[in-house]
Amino acid sequence: MTYLLGLDGGGTGCRAALADLSGNVLGTGKSGSANIMTDMNTARLNILDATEAAFKKAGIDAGQTKTVFAVLGLAGANVGGNGAKLEAMLPFQKSLVYSDGVIALQGALGDHDGTVVILGTGSAYVTRLGKDIRFAGGWGFKVSDLGGGARLGRDLLEETLLAYDKFHPSSPMTAAVLERFGGNPHRIVQFAHSATPSDFGTFAPTVFEYAAKNDAVAVALLDKTIGQIERGLDATMSPAPMRLSLLGGLGALYGPLLSPHYRAMLQAPLNDALTGAVQLAARNFAATPAETAHG
Amino acid sequence: MTYLLGLDGGGTGCRAALADLSGNVLGTGKSGSANIMTDMNTARLNILDATEAAFKKAGIDAGQTKTVFAVLGLAGANVGGNGAKLEAMLPFQKSLVYSDGVIALQGALGDHDGTVVILGTGSAYVTRLGKDIRFAGGWGFKVSDLGGGARLGRDLLEETLLAYDKFHPSSPMTAAVLERFGGNPHRIVQFAHSATPSDFGTFAPTVFEYAAKNDAVAVALLDKTIGQIERGLDATMSPAPMRLSLLGGLGALYGPLLSPHYRAMLQAPLNDALTGAVQLAARNFAATPAETAHG
Repeated sequence: MTYLLGLDGGGTGCRAALADLSGNVLGTGKSGSANIMTDMNTARLNILDATEAAFKKAGIDAGQTKTVFAVLGLAGANVGGNGAKLEAMLPFQKSLVYSDGVIALQGALGDHDGTVVILGTGSAYVTRLGKDIRFAGGWGFKVSDLGGGARLGRDLLEETLLAYDKFHPSSPMTAAVLERFGGNPHRIVQFAHSATPSDFGTFAPTVFEYAAKNDAVAVALLDKTIGQIERGLDATMSPAPMRLSLLGGLGALYGPLLSPHYRAMLQAPLNDALTGAVQLAARNFAATPAETAHG
Repeated sequence: MTYLLGLDGGGTGCRAALADLSGNVLGTGKSGSANIMTDMNTARLNILDATEAAFKKAGIDAGQTKTVFAVLGLAGANVGGNGAKLEAMLPFQKSLVYSDGVIALQGALGDHDGTVVILGTGSAYVTRLGKDIRFAGGWGFKVSDLGGGARLGRDLLEETLLAYDKFHPSSPMTAAVLERFGGNPHRIVQFAHSATPSDFGTFAPTVFEYAAKNDAVAVALLDKTIGQIERGLDATMSPAPMRLSLLGGLGALYGPLLSPHYRAMLQAPLNDALTGAVQLAARNFAATPAETAHG
């Protein structure tokens, strides 16, 4: 007996789905972080843990691991040969390591052409036109990822300090954020000093919350950010209407705020990235087209 | 015999000037970093090293150190009681620890009212109106310091990646920066991953250089940045004309680019921050007004 494995992995954790050769999911499992850019060995161990958990959930002997045809979507797979390195380290019968954007695209759009924008802590664009898959953005918090939660949350802290100094107008939102730091701007600086992108990202939902109440600073921040996202769409989408899905934790928040041109193209994602990985495993390794479980 | 000591210290090093009670400098000395926010003990040791070097240069027995009246200007002196803590740890007869901005202000403006903007790796505003000294900005690279070299250099790398993705227009400047990274955007990401604010700041002069050649991206970046600096000036300067000096490595580059309103107030700094510290030592500890050596 041979199985398909889909895996969706990144800095916050891995999810694996074991499926039959038609792509029907038999069991899923989770484990820790799989950051192949910073720690290939830990990533490998956590990938195997998640796989073992999926076998267990499916009630299948994990001794079958070596028979598996696997598709893995991992951040950084397209950098410096990381994907090929990991493929060589895995015990599966066959392994294909893609960028996480590829499985997210497949999950969200199925076999349709179009663009997905992954708006989580970071931001990245993946576009499919026929057999061509293109990536844009997603270069990370420090020099890219406009519209992502980390940049938006960081912008909110910056506006709070600019309001404190009276360089920019204050608003109920900047007053509330300053209050969250005990009214002490030095505590914002301390927080920022050691904040990870995810830490900054915890402030992003506050901007949407206050924009809904017409807070002037929140509205201005989102106007700027939506302009940035749409410049990305202008560059990545063809002029003809295509499918567009916004993914990630902020995707559903940004959707209704897009201009009418792009709102008209918006489609809810068909499936998640893990399902996309299983579909691609079925596509690449099985004779028949994938029929996958939704959700 | 009693001496005055002025000291200008920060993350990159300390400079000390030993002076007589009239403020005439007798000798100067240098040593390593004095970052009282991260390592108070090392800061103390380097302050004493620079002091000893100044005594040596002046040909005076360093045994006189305990007779000294000292004014020290150090970044972070106004945060969390750091200044008072350091004062208690120093072996001088009397010590006053001020924020680095205070000695820079005194050096640049002498006894005049006005504003200095310190435009180095970071950016900070110090304003004197009579006895009142106010600080603004200067909260650090991550959430503040608009117009500083670190933010400007980082912006240039961001624009280079946006141009690579065709989200924003490219220009000779963005092409030259990409070329500096071997045409490989992943190398920009790698650089940014471990770059310090100073590392980002090494790219700031490139923006001025290309703006002088009318590079459209460079001109747009500086227009944005000068707007940010002037919003800071609008908030910190009184409506009536005051003295304005731009200090730091980028001060002289920004000066000619300010709008006519602020350009009309611009004055070359009278003296450097170390001289400002000596002046303040004379002011605080000696009977007669300071007459300090220039330069």
